Amino acid sequence: MAGSLLIAQSGGPSAVVNASLAGLIGASVEAGVFKKVLGLRHGILGALPGGHGHLDLSAFDTGRLVALADTPGAALGSCRHKLDRGERAAVINWFRHHDIHFFAYIGGNDSMQTCLQLDQAARDSGYELSVVGVPKTIDNDLLETDHCPGYGSAARFWATTAQEVSLDLAAMRGYDTVAVLECMGRNSGWLAAAATLGRSTAGGPPHIVLIPEVQVELDKLLARVEAEIRRNGSAVVVTAETVRACTGGYLAASGPEGQNGRRDAFGHPIVAGTADFLANHMGSALGVKARTVKPGTMQRAASRLVSSVDRDEAWQVGAAAARMLAEGKSGVMVTLQSEREPKYRSWCEAVSLERVAGGEKTLPASFLEVYEGGSCNFSSAFADYARPLLGGPLPEFVRLS
Amino acid sequence: MAGSLLIAQSGGPSAVVNASLAGLIGASVEAGVFKKVLGLRHGILGALPGGHGHLDLSAFDTGRLVALADTPGAALGSCRHKLDRGERAAVINWFRHHDIHFFAYIGGNDSMQTCLQLDQAARDSGYELSVVGVPKTIDNDLLETDHCPGYGSAARFWATTAQEVSLDLAAMRGYDTVAVLECMGRNSGWLAAAATLGRSTAGGPPHIVLIPEVQVELDKLLARVEAEIRRNGSAVVVTAETVRACTGGYLAASGPEGQNGRRDAFGHPIVAGTADFLANHMGSALGVKARTVKPGTMQRAASRLVSSVDRDEAWQVGAAAARMLAEGKSGVMVTLQSEREPKYRSWCEAVSLERVAGGEKTLPASFLEVYEGGSCNFSSAFADYARPLLGGPLPEFVRLS
Repeated sequence: MAGSLLIAQSGGPSAVVNASLAGLIGASVEAGVFKKVLGLRHGILGALPGGHGHLDLSAFDTGRLVALADTPGAALGSCRHKLDRGERAAVINWFRHHDIHFFAYIGGNDSMQTCLQLDQAARDSGYELSVVGVPKTIDNDLLETDHCPGYGSAARFWATTAQEVSLDLAAMRGYDTVAVLECMGRNSGWLAAAATLGRSTAGGPPHIVLIPEVQVELDKLLARVEAEIRRNGSAVVVTAETVRACTGGYLAASGPEGQNGRRDAFGHPIVAGTADFLANHMGSALGVKARTVKPGTMQRAASRLVSSVDRDEAWQVGAAAARMLAEGKSGVMVTLQSEREPKYRSWCEAVSLERVAGGEKTLPASFLEVYEGGSCNFSSAFADYARPLLGGPLPEFVRLS
Repeated sequence: MAGSLLIAQSGGPSAVVNASLAGLIGASVEAGVFKKVLGLRHGILGALPGGHGHLDLSAFDTGRLVALADTPGAALGSCRHKLDRGERAAVINWFRHHDIHFFAYIGGNDSMQTCLQLDQAARDSGYELSVVGVPKTIDNDLLETDHCPGYGSAARFWATTAQEVSLDLAAMRGYDTVAVLECMGRNSGWLAAAATLGRSTAGGPPHIVLIPEVQVELDKLLARVEAEIRRNGSAVVVTAETVRACTGGYLAASGPEGQNGRRDAFGHPIVAGTADFLANHMGSALGVKARTVKPGTMQRAASRLVSSVDRDEAWQVGAAAARMLAEGKSGVMVTLQSEREPKYRSWCEAVSLERVAGGEKTLPASFLEVYEGGSCNFSSAFADYARPLLGGPLPEFVRLS
C-alpha cells in the first residue's frame, strides 16, 4: 500500500499539541514511505464539503519544527465534530480522491471515536487505510495511557498559578479574603488536583479543592472556608468548572437558561460559572471580599509554562505515530507508558482504538482524600504520579516570617 | 539624624514588587548608616493598634535577595488604608517608639499620599523623619515617572497572553467565535493597550480594544465585531475592567446591587464584570459562542512572565530609595527616567511627593486612535514607548498557511 499521509488535529488545543504535529511531520518525512504528507484544516471537517481544505507539509522547513512545537493552539485548526454515517463515506471518498492511505488524528476521546469509525468505514468500502490516533488532552482522561500529552503543561500551569495567586491573596489579607480559581475539567478533577502540587507546606494553599467526582455539601464547605479564614486570614479555593451538589444537579447551572433562568436587560441568559457562584455565595455568606481567577483558554495555551517533559512526550507520540503508520500498524492509538523508579522515564506503545474510544478516566479512589463538605486532598500516590510530568522543579518562592 | 529605616509595601502587588524590596534591603544594609532595617507588616497598618507588627531585616541573608525579588505578592504584606489625622499621629508615635527616622513606602498613588501625610505629620510634631516613596503599580498611572515598575511585566503578560489565546481561538473557528479578555485598569487603558504589542500583523488579533478613557457605543461596536468575524472567522476583544457607555454610566454595573439589581437564589447580588457583560451581549446578539478570559490577580503575580527590564528597574528604584534616604533626601518619590534612542536605558531621579500624590496619568491622546464604536488602536508612538519595557522579544509563534 502506497499513498499519502494525512495529519489532522481535533478537540480543544493544548500548549503542546503542535509538538505532536512537529513530531509527526519530522518522522513522517524521515520515514520516506509516504507519497506526500498533508495537513487537514480544522480536523475532519476539512475533508467535508465546504471545509477549509488541506495543505502540503511534505516540504515543511524542518528548521521551523521546533518553533512550531512551541506554538500554542492547534496550528492546522481544530474542530469538534461527530461524523454521521453519510459523512464517513464522504471522508473516505475525499481520501480516495487525494490518495490518502494513512491517517493520523491528534485528539482526545471523541477523536479516537472518529478514528475508529473511519477505520470501519474504510474497511466497509474496501478502501485500504491505516489509522493511528495520537493522544492529546489537558484533561488527562484517556484510557490505556499512563497520562496524556497536554496534561503535564496544564498541570504545571495550575501548580504554579495556584501558588502565585495565593501569595497575592495573602499579601492583601483583610481586603481580599477568598480567591476561587476555576480549572477546566467537566468530568474529572485531574487539573484541579494538579493545583495542589506546588504547596510549600501541608495545610498551605490551595485550602479547598472541588472536583467533578465528589459532590459538594455547601453548608459544610462554607464552615470549612470560614475555619481556613480564621486560621490563615484568607482561603484559596480551586474548583473544577463543573461540580455537583449533594442535593442533586450542578452547583452552578450554566445551561441555555443560565443560572436560575435569569436574563439580563437585553434578554440574554445570565450564565454564571462555578467559580462565580462560589465567590458570590462565600463572599455574601461570610461578609468578605471574594475574587475569581478564570484564565479560561489560557490554561491550555500558556507557552511560557510548558512542561519540558510534556513537550518532549508530545513530540514523541507524534513521531511514534508516523513510525507505526510507516510500519503498517493501524486501528491503534499511541500510548505513553512510564516508570517512575528509580528515575522517571516514558516510552510509546500502541493500544487498540476500541479500548480507548468513548471511554473516560477519572481520578482513581487511591489518589483521593475527601473531607467533610466535599473538599478534596490528594494522596502521595497522586503526587508521585503527577510530579514527574511537571518537567522539573516548580519556582521556589520566599516567604518572610 | 541617626535611627532605623522602616520599609513597607502598599496597594495591589505586582510581579516585581519584591524586587524593589530586595533592592531596598540590599542597598540599605550596604549604606551602613541605618541603625536597623525593619519591615512593616501589611503596610502602614502594621504601625497601628491591632496591626500585624514588624520584622527585622537587618540580618536578612543577602544570598536570598534574588529569590525574594522573583517572588510575587508583597512579601511584607500589603494594605489599602487611608490614614485619618489621629492615625497619622499614632504612626509617628510608633515610629518614635521604634526609633524610626527613615521610611520607604513601596506603592502607588494612594501610598504617595500617605507618604506626604506622614512627612507633614512628622514636621507638625517636630519629629525628624525622612520619607521616600518607591513607585509600584501595574496600572502605570503615576505622574512624573516615565513608567512604573510593575507595568512592564504586566504588559508582557498581556502581550503574550493575547497572542496565545488568539491562536487557541483561531484553532476553534466555527465553535468558539469571540473571546473577551479582561485586563485590570479602572481608570486607564495602559494594560489593555499592552495587549496589542504582540500583534504579528496589522489587523491581527486583538481586533477590538476597549479602555476607560474612551466611551463605547454598543451597537456600533457590535457591527465591528460582526465584521471581524466575517473577515477572520473569530474576534478577540480586550477590555479594561471598567468601560463607560456613551449613554452614560458603566457598561457593566458592578456596585453592591450587581448588574440590574439582580440577585441569585440566596439573595446575593449577581455581579457581572465587563467581560461577562460583553461576552453575553455579543454571543446572544450574534448567535455565536463567546468565551471570557479573566485571569484576575494572575496578571500581577505571574512570575514566569516577568519582564527582565521591569525586574531590574524595580530593583533599582528600591536601591535608589535607600541611597536617597542615606544621603538625607526626604519628601520625594523615586522616578524612572528613560531614553529610547539609540538604545533603551533608564535611570532613577527624584520628584517632590506633592507633584505625584493623588494624581493619575491616563493614556495621552498621542498614543490613541479611536474607531467607530469606541474600539481603540494605539499609535507607533505608544509601541516605541512600551516595547522596551517588555524586556526582550516576545515569543514568536508559527502560523501555517
